[in-house]
Amino acid sequence: MTIAITCGEPAGIGPELCAMVATKALPAAVVAIGDRQLLARRAENLGLTLTLTDAAQGTPDTHCPGILPVINLPFPQPDCVAEPQTANAATLLQGLDVAVDGCRSGRFDAMVTAPLQKSVINDAGFSFSGHTEYIAERCGDATPVMLLASDRMRVALATTHMPLRAVADAITQTLLTEVMDILWHDLHTKFDLKSPHVVVCGLNPHAGEGGHLGHEDSDIIVPAIKAQRAQGRNIQGPFPADTLFNHAGKNADAILAMYHDQGLPVIKYSGFGDIVNVTLGLPIVRTSVDHGSALDIAGKGQADDSSLIAAINMASTLRSGS
Amino acid sequence: MTIAITCGEPAGIGPELCAMVATKALPAAVVAIGDRQLLARRAENLGLTLTLTDAAQGTPDTHCPGILPVINLPFPQPDCVAEPQTANAATLLQGLDVAVDGCRSGRFDAMVTAPLQKSVINDAGFSFSGHTEYIAERCGDATPVMLLASDRMRVALATTHMPLRAVADAITQTLLTEVMDILWHDLHTKFDLKSPHVVVCGLNPHAGEGGHLGHEDSDIIVPAIKAQRAQGRNIQGPFPADTLFNHAGKNADAILAMYHDQGLPVIKYSGFGDIVNVTLGLPIVRTSVDHGSALDIAGKGQADDSSLIAAINMASTLRSGS
Repeated sequence: MTIAITCGEPAGIGPELCAMVATKALPAAVVAIGDRQLLARRAENLGLTLTLTDAAQGTPDTHCPGILPVINLPFPQPDCVAEPQTANAATLLQGLDVAVDGCRSGRFDAMVTAPLQKSVINDAGFSFSGHTEYIAERCGDATPVMLLASDRMRVALATTHMPLRAVADAITQTLLTEVMDILWHDLHTKFDLKSPHVVVCGLNPHAGEGGHLGHEDSDIIVPAIKAQRAQGRNIQGPFPADTLFNHAGKNADAILAMYHDQGLPVIKYSGFGDIVNVTLGLPIVRTSVDHGSALDIAGKGQADDSSLIAAINMASTLRSGS
Repeated sequence: MTIAITCGEPAGIGPELCAMVATKALPAAVVAIGDRQLLARRAENLGLTLTLTDAAQGTPDTHCPGILPVINLPFPQPDCVAEPQTANAATLLQGLDVAVDGCRSGRFDAMVTAPLQKSVINDAGFSFSGHTEYIAERCGDATPVMLLASDRMRVALATTHMPLRAVADAITQTLLTEVMDILWHDLHTKFDLKSPHVVVCGLNPHAGEGGHLGHEDSDIIVPAIKAQRAQGRNIQGPFPADTLFNHAGKNADAILAMYHDQGLPVIKYSGFGDIVNVTLGLPIVRTSVDHGSALDIAGKGQADDSSLIAAINMASTLRSGS
């Protein structure tokens, strides 16, 4: 199999991470999508022995450590360590397009994304709320569900990148049904779990405390879960989020959190570095690192490639979810 | 010193936890406030050798394992394992009053609370949003700040028990200033930290991502922190909550989360059982267990007293915060 890796924001650590992992043993052939000269410079700065080849000239069936085929997309302003340039935004999005389209056409079996700097892409005038949403749109308006996964737990999000004040209104039975359908389906297909067990967080503190701390838990989440259970799915909740990770969620195949900062702090705390972001709901396999572009340490040889390696490893184990 | 312990909801595990800890070595004298006959029955059920004395007849200066002085407040319906009765609500609140007033008068040096079942107290017709808020009001409308603490971290909350949809509007500069004043002051006085280091979570995902995911972080939290720093206080942020616990928060004396399910899932995941709830902002010392009344295991001898022991231990080390 062949995995496409988008090299991410050139001001950040993405390109050097791509160079680093390419020197190591990997479970599948990889193709980097990025600026070839930039990759060469970052590899040289780190003292890595890395040969960059032109992916158009052919790619091997397995990864050979020290050799990295590249689809070259030169940035207008590649020399920008720690200082993202809006001029590079269009090229970054083009790289995502190449990866997504290659997965859909069968050229690639999966894609793995190194981090972007979202705000810079927005500042460049593109409407961009994140990798996940962008890739889903490119896949024909698929509904993406964000899942973070490690060996210890999997956490999916019902809502992702929106202001906190928008979350309560966004939690509808329609949304939850769609998200739970996708989560259950993809745990079944992509993760090959025969009968997935999912536990669901409440929206409000203490899952609403019997209506005393909000009504969405009883009025929206409870019926959405009931409808899932009526289909024979092992989905339970809503449970208070503050204790769920110790109790009901402990042995579940996935925890469904209602929003970003309810679910992600725990899984990131549980083991930053080996956590992989998996986008469910797509007709393709896409994984990503769990960290940002780390402008402060870019180009300094301090970046840790363990999350990118974990993302590549996980991508190699997932099945495309049709 | 003498610590008052309120025994909590009689349908839950509170009374048996009080009986259990009283048989062990404790760092201070304790006085239980609850239903003496109920305590005796729970102790008997557990096979504990415990002598209950009348606190009005005098209390020793140190705790003697196996002897527990009690301020007897009999419940109208004490036999209610797993089935909380609204008829008991007034007596439960009376117990809190006795503990608070005893701390304020100097009879007790601190109070420790076993869990209540909030919804039942509400159903009984009392306006009660939690122990913390009730005790603060009894202390003359003090502003309480909820802090959860363990050996590994301390997490304070800017808002506590409110529906998620109310949180964003509740985060004002006035509130944050008050909370940060109290947090800094009490870390200094109650926890005896000479120069406390506090890190603050953003309200929105990614702390607002430069305004793309909400404006409260830049418009409200940033100026509130700046005003604190102008006073020479080591308070930093706002940082994205999903990574703060691994990075900026790792070596801080306390993390200030904006709301309940942003901060509590992480600290509870980090070590359920030895986490203590400390109410800051009060003229008295009050700590509490980090768990609920656990109706499902009440009276079955399955309850774990480690959090109550931790709460008593912490209460014995804190100074009253005036």
